[in-house]
Amino acid sequence: MSVDLAPDPAVDTLARRTATFVREVVVPVEERHGGVARSESVRTNLQRAAVDAGVFAPHVAPEYGGHGLDMRGRAVVFEEAGYSLLGPLALNIAAPDEGNMHLLEIIAAPEQKERYLRPLAAGAVRSSFAMTEPAPGAGSDPAALATRAERVPGGWRIDGRKWFITGADGAAFTICMARTSGRPGDRGGATMFLVDADNPRMKLVRHIETLDESLYGGHLEVLFDGCVVPDSAVLGEVDEGFRYAQVRLGPARMTHCMRWLGIARRSQDIAVARANQREIFGSRLADLGMVQAMIADNEIDIAASRALILQACWELDLGRSGAQSTAIAKTFTAEAVWRVVDRALQICGALGVSGDVLLGRYLREVRPFRIYDGPSETHRWAIAQRVARAAAR
Amino acid sequence: MSVDLAPDPAVDTLARRTATFVREVVVPVEERHGGVARSESVRTNLQRAAVDAGVFAPHVAPEYGGHGLDMRGRAVVFEEAGYSLLGPLALNIAAPDEGNMHLLEIIAAPEQKERYLRPLAAGAVRSSFAMTEPAPGAGSDPAALATRAERVPGGWRIDGRKWFITGADGAAFTICMARTSGRPGDRGGATMFLVDADNPRMKLVRHIETLDESLYGGHLEVLFDGCVVPDSAVLGEVDEGFRYAQVRLGPARMTHCMRWLGIARRSQDIAVARANQREIFGSRLADLGMVQAMIADNEIDIAASRALILQACWELDLGRSGAQSTAIAKTFTAEAVWRVVDRALQICGALGVSGDVLLGRYLREVRPFRIYDGPSETHRWAIAQRVARAAAR
Amino acid sequence: MSVDLAPDPAVDTLARRTATFVREVVVPVEERHGGVARSESVRTNLQRAAVDAGVFAPHVAPEYGGHGLDMRGRAVVFEEAGYSLLGPLALNIAAPDEGNMHLLEIIAAPEQKERYLRPLAAGAVRSSFAMTEPAPGAGSDPAALATRAERVPGGWRIDGRKWFITGADGAAFTICMARTSGRPGDRGGATMFLVDADNPRMKLVRHIETLDESLYGGHLEVLFDGCVVPDSAVLGEVDEGFRYAQVRLGPARMTHCMRWLGIARRSQDIAVARANQREIFGSRLADLGMVQAMIADNEIDIAASRALILQACWELDLGRSGAQSTAIAKTFTAEAVWRVVDRALQICGALGVSGDVLLGRYLREVRPFRIYDGPSETHRWAIAQRVARAAAR
Amino acid sequence: MSVDLAPDPAVDTLARRTATFVREVVVPVEERHGGVARSESVRTNLQRAAVDAGVFAPHVAPEYGGHGLDMRGRAVVFEEAGYSLLGPLALNIAAPDEGNMHLLEIIAAPEQKERYLRPLAAGAVRSSFAMTEPAPGAGSDPAALATRAERVPGGWRIDGRKWFITGADGAAFTICMARTSGRPGDRGGATMFLVDADNPRMKLVRHIETLDESLYGGHLEVLFDGCVVPDSAVLGEVDEGFRYAQVRLGPARMTHCMRWLGIARRSQDIAVARANQREIFGSRLADLGMVQAMIADNEIDIAASRALILQACWELDLGRSGAQSTAIAKTFTAEAVWRVVDRALQICGALGVSGDVLLGRYLREVRPFRIYDGPSETHRWAIAQRVARAAAR
Repeated sequence: MSVDLAPDPAVDTLARRTATFVREVVVPVEERHGGVARSESVRTNLQRAAVDAGVFAPHVAPEYGGHGLDMRGRAVVFEEAGYSLLGPLALNIAAPDEGNMHLLEIIAAPEQKERYLRPLAAGAVRSSFAMTEPAPGAGSDPAALATRAERVPGGWRIDGRKWFITGADGAAFTICMARTSGRPGDRGGATMFLVDADNPRMKLVRHIETLDESLYGGHLEVLFDGCVVPDSAVLGEVDEGFRYAQVRLGPARMTHCMRWLGIARRSQDIAVARANQREIFGSRLADLGMVQAMIADNEIDIAASRALILQACWELDLGRSGAQSTAIAKTFTAEAVWRVVDRALQICGALGVSGDVLLGRYLREVRPFRIYDGPSETHRWAIAQRVARAAAR
Repeated sequence: MSVDLAPDPAVDTLARRTATFVREVVVPVEERHGGVARSESVRTNLQRAAVDAGVFAPHVAPEYGGHGLDMRGRAVVFEEAGYSLLGPLALNIAAPDEGNMHLLEIIAAPEQKERYLRPLAAGAVRSSFAMTEPAPGAGSDPAALATRAERVPGGWRIDGRKWFITGADGAAFTICMARTSGRPGDRGGATMFLVDADNPRMKLVRHIETLDESLYGGHLEVLFDGCVVPDSAVLGEVDEGFRYAQVRLGPARMTHCMRWLGIARRSQDIAVARANQREIFGSRLADLGMVQAMIADNEIDIAASRALILQACWELDLGRSGAQSTAIAKTFTAEAVWRVVDRALQICGALGVSGDVLLGRYLREVRPFRIYDGPSETHRWAIAQRVARAAAR
Repeated sequence: MSVDLAPDPAVDTLARRTATFVREVVVPVEERHGGVARSESVRTNLQRAAVDAGVFAPHVAPEYGGHGLDMRGRAVVFEEAGYSLLGPLALNIAAPDEGNMHLLEIIAAPEQKERYLRPLAAGAVRSSFAMTEPAPGAGSDPAALATRAERVPGGWRIDGRKWFITGADGAAFTICMARTSGRPGDRGGATMFLVDADNPRMKLVRHIETLDESLYGGHLEVLFDGCVVPDSAVLGEVDEGFRYAQVRLGPARMTHCMRWLGIARRSQDIAVARANQREIFGSRLADLGMVQAMIADNEIDIAASRALILQACWELDLGRSGAQSTAIAKTFTAEAVWRVVDRALQICGALGVSGDVLLGRYLREVRPFRIYDGPSETHRWAIAQRVARAAAR
Repeated sequence: MSVDLAPDPAVDTLARRTATFVREVVVPVEERHGGVARSESVRTNLQRAAVDAGVFAPHVAPEYGGHGLDMRGRAVVFEEAGYSLLGPLALNIAAPDEGNMHLLEIIAAPEQKERYLRPLAAGAVRSSFAMTEPAPGAGSDPAALATRAERVPGGWRIDGRKWFITGADGAAFTICMARTSGRPGDRGGATMFLVDADNPRMKLVRHIETLDESLYGGHLEVLFDGCVVPDSAVLGEVDEGFRYAQVRLGPARMTHCMRWLGIARRSQDIAVARANQREIFGSRLADLGMVQAMIADNEIDIAASRALILQACWELDLGRSGAQSTAIAKTFTAEAVWRVVDRALQICGALGVSGDVLLGRYLREVRPFRIYDGPSETHRWAIAQRVARAAAR
């Protein structure tokens, strides 16, 4: 059997259905709200429409109501969903819920799945993932994890401060990563805990104002202040948190790429439509060489991102670590998407910076992706280290 | 006499005073307001403080209360003022007022100077400049000017639609550029008109929502709908508007560069302070090679921008056209400033995209400068044409 | 069936054998000759060794002594062959012979295959492809074709000047593209002719001195000066030359990419080995952030090139036009390979510019690839046009 | 006094005379020799012509036959000289002689000036500067200096290996930098020695083959093998070599920039002439947007390089260290010149890679400048460190 790049027909069908749904149903809502959904009614209406369109929860196993796509399948479908900022929310594949479902499916105990995964997969509740900490805690360097969980009778007491906890406001539960052995700076062991939102010692300190605003529920600073959870709140095994984080992060990195690639394509479509229509200096924009160069570079960036994502997804589906290929795909895609949106905005000129099109909004939304899920610099460092070590063997 | 790059001592003194004023008085206000002043009280308080500090209106002739700086002097002082988004507002050198004062000083009749320039220079009123039109009107291509002024007894009737008219909301008057001969696409002749804000047929249609938000008074869409003005409203000569526009645009391009260069330096300072303090992977950020590369590239971009601005200002002060040198300086600086802010934000990581520092705000503010005052592509086209024509001679 | 990126096992085996052969047999010869083979004995010895190693002519059908690889298979094997400048020569897959074999296999009549393809596939003879003309003839714009072929009794008379005809010195025959209808600037019709080297009116005017020197036989200027060929010299149909050129050019574009990708990997390996060993400022180069950034960017460029090549090859194997995907892959790869070699040389410092390693040679060899087979600008123009047209539908 | 960017009239006159001389006399010789002078007769003929034209040795004090230009004056004149690869040789301002004259004028004792500087300034002899060592010796990190000089009766004995010693073959003397205290890796003290070419223990090991070939006399590997020199060979003070190296390196860095900036302009002129003449796809190249973008970017790069060089030269003339400004100017210019030549070659297409124009030669010549006189990475590191330290105060 030779290399085959055609998606599975079922995936292809779902992708087309998703594309139609996003263009016909989601994009009008997105444009009406300037790209940012701020109310539960918008979310639930979109999700109901996605259920009706048969495109809801494509990544979740059928027993939890989804289509059970593997990573290669997600690559195709999520890109279509990402064509609108609200597409992932509609399909219930937005961060951080999507990554949490992925993690829970793999690691959670049966009761935990019933209690947390099932309603999450159905869109009945939302969730968050509390890992990142303000300096000098865990950020690019997970080993700096400072939040601690200590044994107490019948459970654990968590103390620490987290920030950029996306979606925490309104989430039914949070998966909190806390250190259960070792010290910040050493690796040691971490454990993941399922913390219910009504736990009184998990406190939402503030909404962090950020350049991006479209991730539903915002980015929160959260304080775990003697927050006690029962033993049943432990997700997977004690001290295995860093390993689980990899289970979540590799794929989550890729699904971010897929979704933002959708926005890159959307930006390109907006710019090309404008270039086809706008006349200046006696030519259409689309006939001017410098504009053509931008359109072509966008096309190249989109194609290369898609190809690198697919490569990484294929490795993940085979059960390989994918550490190098996801780092490569993430670094390239985060920067490529940024370039694409920036060029699209430039092509549109004054219109591009106005709210009359969504390009300024997209520019704000994609910028942080060069930082979260590993800044480009951290990935480059890791990529180079792997190459250098392999060569030294 | 050999080349001398030291500023005049009086300029140097004023620059230092400005730097101190901005750091001590303006920056705290800027941080309190997230970089965007939205009320007259903020504006007037800042301007009063600037008067008290002896740094107000550095560009205006002494007879109108200023320091009478030439372009080279402005280069030094405006950069210091630009260190805060609100510095130019405080010194009364923000766009579009600053460019309007420059234009009025050179072109206005004595009575016009008393009526429009004097209060503007004193900060008693604000103004706007109505040139840009929605497609297919005047934008990158001024010859596309579609707004018309027709002779009526005792004056002119202006009809047309303008957009991105900065500061129009609250301005006491607008300088409106309208076609008085020829047709859109031909060059023909344009004329500048002083239109009082209380003219009932000059209508503010809407505030245009934009990526940037810090230019005081916002960006407006303005309709001239049979707007009649008297003969005394003509600024300079009839049909000389395109020539006057060059009088305004070359210097205005440079003063934009100066101010944004200040923001580039501010961004660099924020990033370097962070890099000196933040530890990760056992090092200070400032000791990591990839961060050092970004810091150095920022320094190079800042130095090159400053040097190109100075070159262009020197030519303008000598009375040369400066068409090529201002185009080069503008294109480079607009892109360099963008890169600097982007790198500074990247160095700061999650903090950089948060509202806890102003870098996300700066990123939004500087992006449109690659488009207004001539998109980079238009300038590159013009630069190349001049080179090719000179070579063909 | 889902997407599968694993090469066919037979391809994989051949690729590994090729990799071993190149490292063990070819690289030492390459290093001895500074990357440039200038004698028939080097060529024939290398080819004999490749036959012995079972890696010769992987792209040719088995009936002509090859392995019959499709484009996806070539992608894997040619990259391994390209790990040395002399690898493609050894495997008989160097330009222009490789592209000529591809063309002849598809288009030539049976007798032509026996006479031209069989000895070419066996390495018994070499060939050239005479399409490019000095300005204002055919170059980036094939329609500018100025060489004409006119009917004469029993055949055709060809008149015109070609340049950059690679390998023409010593080639047994040339495939010459000449206009048989229409005029330069119109498209009209072109025809391909098989011209034997002993034709007295096909004259080698000069070797063109070029930045690159490793393509065997050099780049020639060739004059067709009343060069008469019989009807049997027509390759395929009269007036179908432009269509055949596409048959040759799309795949040839990709095989160039594959081979140069091998040189990119080789450059990276040289640089990483150096970085692992060289100490400076108290660190290994490989531990310095700016060096790590270059190593990582090389890795990303290599991975993205490979992924784009594979995408295009898959489309070509399916019988699709591949116009867009080969243009994207070619543009990206030609520039990526250039960047990789440049960074590798930079990592090696003074050593990198010396003849003690081959990086300076590689830099010279890969530069022209951003120009031949379509300059990046021409491809970008074509890519953008296709996008704009598709959007306008 | 305000900023003044006009060169001194005497400088201006000399620059114009140099420009005329280079275009009329030097360029034809350069083109005849493919940019590389390989014989003494070419050198002496060019230098005699430069004397006749009154443009010889512009940088040397009048008492040694020169024009006594300061650094700002050199910036203007050297750029004109650098318009041809052979211009600096003709004016006797090529590396390393030019830097050696600069050093000798400042540091040498009167007798040393008579013996070494006078004939060197007259072009009667050539010289070299032996600092760089193969790894792990002195390169980017001068403190790694491994060549040692030990006291012997009446003088010093030098032992060590140097490479990339430009011009050493045929030079009458070499200035050798050797460690006289401390150990490699520590800073310690170095001393400069004047070593006559006939010293039997200074051995030319080999010519190093390099990507660039135009620096007269080539790049040599030189062995100091118990090389004894008398006390009178000490240049300046013992143990002050590192300080003297700075005296030489800062200005030498700038004069390299000036000369290569000349080649950048030459490349641009070649490309623009071609773009004005060559028609393709029905347009002149000069009318195609992507070509215009390259022409404009070249113009911007040239202008910014020139402005940064001037800034650094002004600081050096004032007696400031210029460490930061020369590092900024060198890093930017070395990369800008490279980009300019690369774009010029791209504009010329196939012609650009051919020997029919000199662009391929220029590309080879400018590449190493991103490495010698401090690799870009080393400069960026130093630039960032200075910024970070200043901020930490």
